[in-house]
Amino acid sequence: MANHILANENIVDAYGHVSIRHPENPQRFLLSCSRSPEFVTTDDILEFGFDGEPTVPGGKKPYLERFIHAGVYAARPDVHAVIHSHAADVLPFTISTRPLQPVLNTASGIGEKVPVWDIRDNFGDTNILVESIAQANDLARTLADNSVTLMRGHGFTAVGRTLVEAVKSAIYLPLNARVMLAALSLGGEIKPLSPGEIAIRLKTPIDSPAYTRAWEYWTNRVKLSGAATCACCGGKHDTDNREGR
Amino acid sequence: MANHILANENIVDAYGHVSIRHPENPQRFLLSCSRSPEFVTTDDILEFGFDGEPTVPGGKKPYLERFIHAGVYAARPDVHAVIHSHAADVLPFTISTRPLQPVLNTASGIGEKVPVWDIRDNFGDTNILVESIAQANDLARTLADNSVTLMRGHGFTAVGRTLVEAVKSAIYLPLNARVMLAALSLGGEIKPLSPGEIAIRLKTPIDSPAYTRAWEYWTNRVKLSGAATCACCGGKHDTDNREGR
Amino acid sequence: MANHILANENIVDAYGHVSIRHPENPQRFLLSCSRSPEFVTTDDILEFGFDGEPTVPGGKKPYLERFIHAGVYAARPDVHAVIHSHAADVLPFTISTRPLQPVLNTASGIGEKVPVWDIRDNFGDTNILVESIAQANDLARTLADNSVTLMRGHGFTAVGRTLVEAVKSAIYLPLNARVMLAALSLGGEIKPLSPGEIAIRLKTPIDSPAYTRAWEYWTNRVKLSGAATCACCGGKHDTDNREGR
Amino acid sequence: MANHILANENIVDAYGHVSIRHPENPQRFLLSCSRSPEFVTTDDILEFGFDGEPTVPGGKKPYLERFIHAGVYAARPDVHAVIHSHAADVLPFTISTRPLQPVLNTASGIGEKVPVWDIRDNFGDTNILVESIAQANDLARTLADNSVTLMRGHGFTAVGRTLVEAVKSAIYLPLNARVMLAALSLGGEIKPLSPGEIAIRLKTPIDSPAYTRAWEYWTNRVKLSGAATCACCGGKHDTDNREGR
Repeated sequence: MANHILANENIVDAYGHVSIRHPENPQRFLLSCSRSPEFVTTDDILEFGFDGEPTVPGGKKPYLERFIHAGVYAARPDVHAVIHSHAADVLPFTISTRPLQPVLNTASGIGEKVPVWDIRDNFGDTNILVESIAQANDLARTLADNSVTLMRGHGFTAVGRTLVEAVKSAIYLPLNARVMLAALSLGGEIKPLSPGEIAIRLKTPIDSPAYTRAWEYWTNRVKLSGAATCACCGGKHDTDNREGR
Repeated sequence: MANHILANENIVDAYGHVSIRHPENPQRFLLSCSRSPEFVTTDDILEFGFDGEPTVPGGKKPYLERFIHAGVYAARPDVHAVIHSHAADVLPFTISTRPLQPVLNTASGIGEKVPVWDIRDNFGDTNILVESIAQANDLARTLADNSVTLMRGHGFTAVGRTLVEAVKSAIYLPLNARVMLAALSLGGEIKPLSPGEIAIRLKTPIDSPAYTRAWEYWTNRVKLSGAATCACCGGKHDTDNREGR
Repeated sequence: MANHILANENIVDAYGHVSIRHPENPQRFLLSCSRSPEFVTTDDILEFGFDGEPTVPGGKKPYLERFIHAGVYAARPDVHAVIHSHAADVLPFTISTRPLQPVLNTASGIGEKVPVWDIRDNFGDTNILVESIAQANDLARTLADNSVTLMRGHGFTAVGRTLVEAVKSAIYLPLNARVMLAALSLGGEIKPLSPGEIAIRLKTPIDSPAYTRAWEYWTNRVKLSGAATCACCGGKHDTDNREGR
Repeated sequence: MANHILANENIVDAYGHVSIRHPENPQRFLLSCSRSPEFVTTDDILEFGFDGEPTVPGGKKPYLERFIHAGVYAARPDVHAVIHSHAADVLPFTISTRPLQPVLNTASGIGEKVPVWDIRDNFGDTNILVESIAQANDLARTLADNSVTLMRGHGFTAVGRTLVEAVKSAIYLPLNARVMLAALSLGGEIKPLSPGEIAIRLKTPIDSPAYTRAWEYWTNRVKLSGAATCACCGGKHDTDNREGR
């Protein structure tokens, strides 16, 4: 369902992916095989280890950039969900020296600081994709204890204590980026959220009705879009063999 | 119908709400229970007092930010409708020191001055939501005798002598914001409406055909959208249990 | 069909209108009654004199701003079509001291100079609508022998030797405005069309296949939109009683 | 199918075209007759020589600007596909002195340098369309050994070693332009791709799975759009007689 929500909210397109830490084995995580999130069904979910490889070899083909998830789960025991996206509204901040700041109450989940990871810093010229555990570990070091890291010329990775928390950050990050960019165009000073405001909002319990309600809302939007049929949501997805990176 | 119009014109999404002062008891106002405006039906409308609480306890769950409406009706006897929205085009002005000005004839209803209420000024760090009468009274003091107040990092509240007047301001405010922002990007000087122009347009009688015609137009657009079925508009709304804040 | 084309290309919405000079009596012009262009049918077309009044009194209600057309036809014998629009992409240039310039080959029809008419210059504070012949004559003086005049805080009026020429200018003007604004944001110098380039393109004969082809293209888009049914295009328009200004 | 993909991804509209070098005779190329790309079928494909004329005279009417393709194939033996487009997001860079740079990993195919061809430099005032071999040869000289050349006030021409490579550049060029423009608005410095990064990505073999997967993805999107029926894709295109330039 998180795959369908992110596709329906235009956070991911053919590319991008979402994973959760395995609920019973924290050394494992669950991520779709290489398929566009819009078309992912329960049959597509594979189990991975911290080496970024499927625990059952010979199955469906995994995403090229699955290492991102492996690196983050290994470095951050508090994280239970990881999202990788190339949402266009965020991209300008990945190539600018101007830091992205949280300016909207709804986007407080992105945290006070949003670092930018530049793969070139430690790996020199590459194809700018995360294709190894070494690169993923480097990304996780830049992420540090933040909720989001931008990736230069590429996209972002958002994490959460829960799946809904990560989804919420991924959905509001592009809006926050668009609004901050527009506010800068106005030529005056801008007022970001204060550290205290962010801290108060981050204290929201993970079982808060605010999270439940948001999830129900996004789920309803998927169902109403009428585009899907699958085991998890009963929609009419075209389960065509579309792949993602 | 105002709920449906605002949803159809993309002024509100899952969140945001619209109320009217009770036509028979000016100490009361009518506002939906916690439901996305797109799905509100006549059965969802609750009656509230100036304390922001439903007059009939134990009914459907109210919006968290219903206090906004209570505070404004208490402070402004001339106001008969209140709208709270998070429309994205307005948000840049809520976090900028550059004031929003009316620049379009259609947006003259927003008035000469559009103040920005910053909840942090008097309440310090909060979750940036209006959750008490004290906060709503503070917002109403910033609104003063204007038609709209922006809310820092959050959205705006628009008021009107009538429902159609408030709806019109809420619909043209985002367009006015977008056009003003773009005009500033051009690098020259901008020409806002003059105080005299605003005054002339504000003198439009509340029963003017211009208002009737606008309402009919927005109503037709709701009906043509084919998305709704409800007591007030005969459309085919999916009355699914979607909630709003 | 011009009404339907302009609505389908998002040049007009509920408001805005298009007229032609009467093919047999150059002292008259043809314009819809007060109805949103999307819904105009042949039965809605009224005949007007240069006083801006219908030649047959007691018929359907005319647009409030019909005077625009009367003033232009009286002042410009070479003009056979007039369009009034509030397209949002053009509005920033109506309130800025930065002049709009033609920058795209497709928009050469807007001409070398695009003046801005400010109703306040000669009429002081008004409601910023064109409600009299005196105001329309003033607008026509600012238009002079150009193809388009912007109207401060309001919209624009485009004219043509033929209906298709006016429609083409009205369709490409917003794109030209958007591209010029974006180019200015890049921070470098911009290269507008040269006077010679504009002159060459303006020499296109009014019966050129380029015009015929464009008209066929726009017409096909109306038909494919499947939104209309009317005498002129065979589409399935909802002929609901929607009015425009 | 390339025609349908480019239309479906909004890279071309009524205008714009895509060609391939003849697979058996490198002195020839294949290009549709004058028809909007969305409606092109296999029956519309004509064969052309380097003079820009159909090899079989008297057939369907060719595009006015077919010379662009002829000039590029003659000058660049390594090129097997050419696309001409007027995508709006690219236009600002065609009229600005600020050069377009590759900033996104997905857009590395546009290469390190993106020249701007100004037809006025060598041909003075024209209608800014490419209507002769002489003009096309001049454009090819500006293109030189790059992957894309912008065309002042007009659009761009993208080339590729293969059809999929040209399509990929044409699809990611507008996104790259939009992101770079937005990043400049942020006011800081921007980080383009490095020459080394571009070189690594350009070394991708033309039979790489990355290309195959992208093509399948775009093809699926065409099929899912449900707008087409034709020999090549089995869709339900309206094969109406729409022409392009």
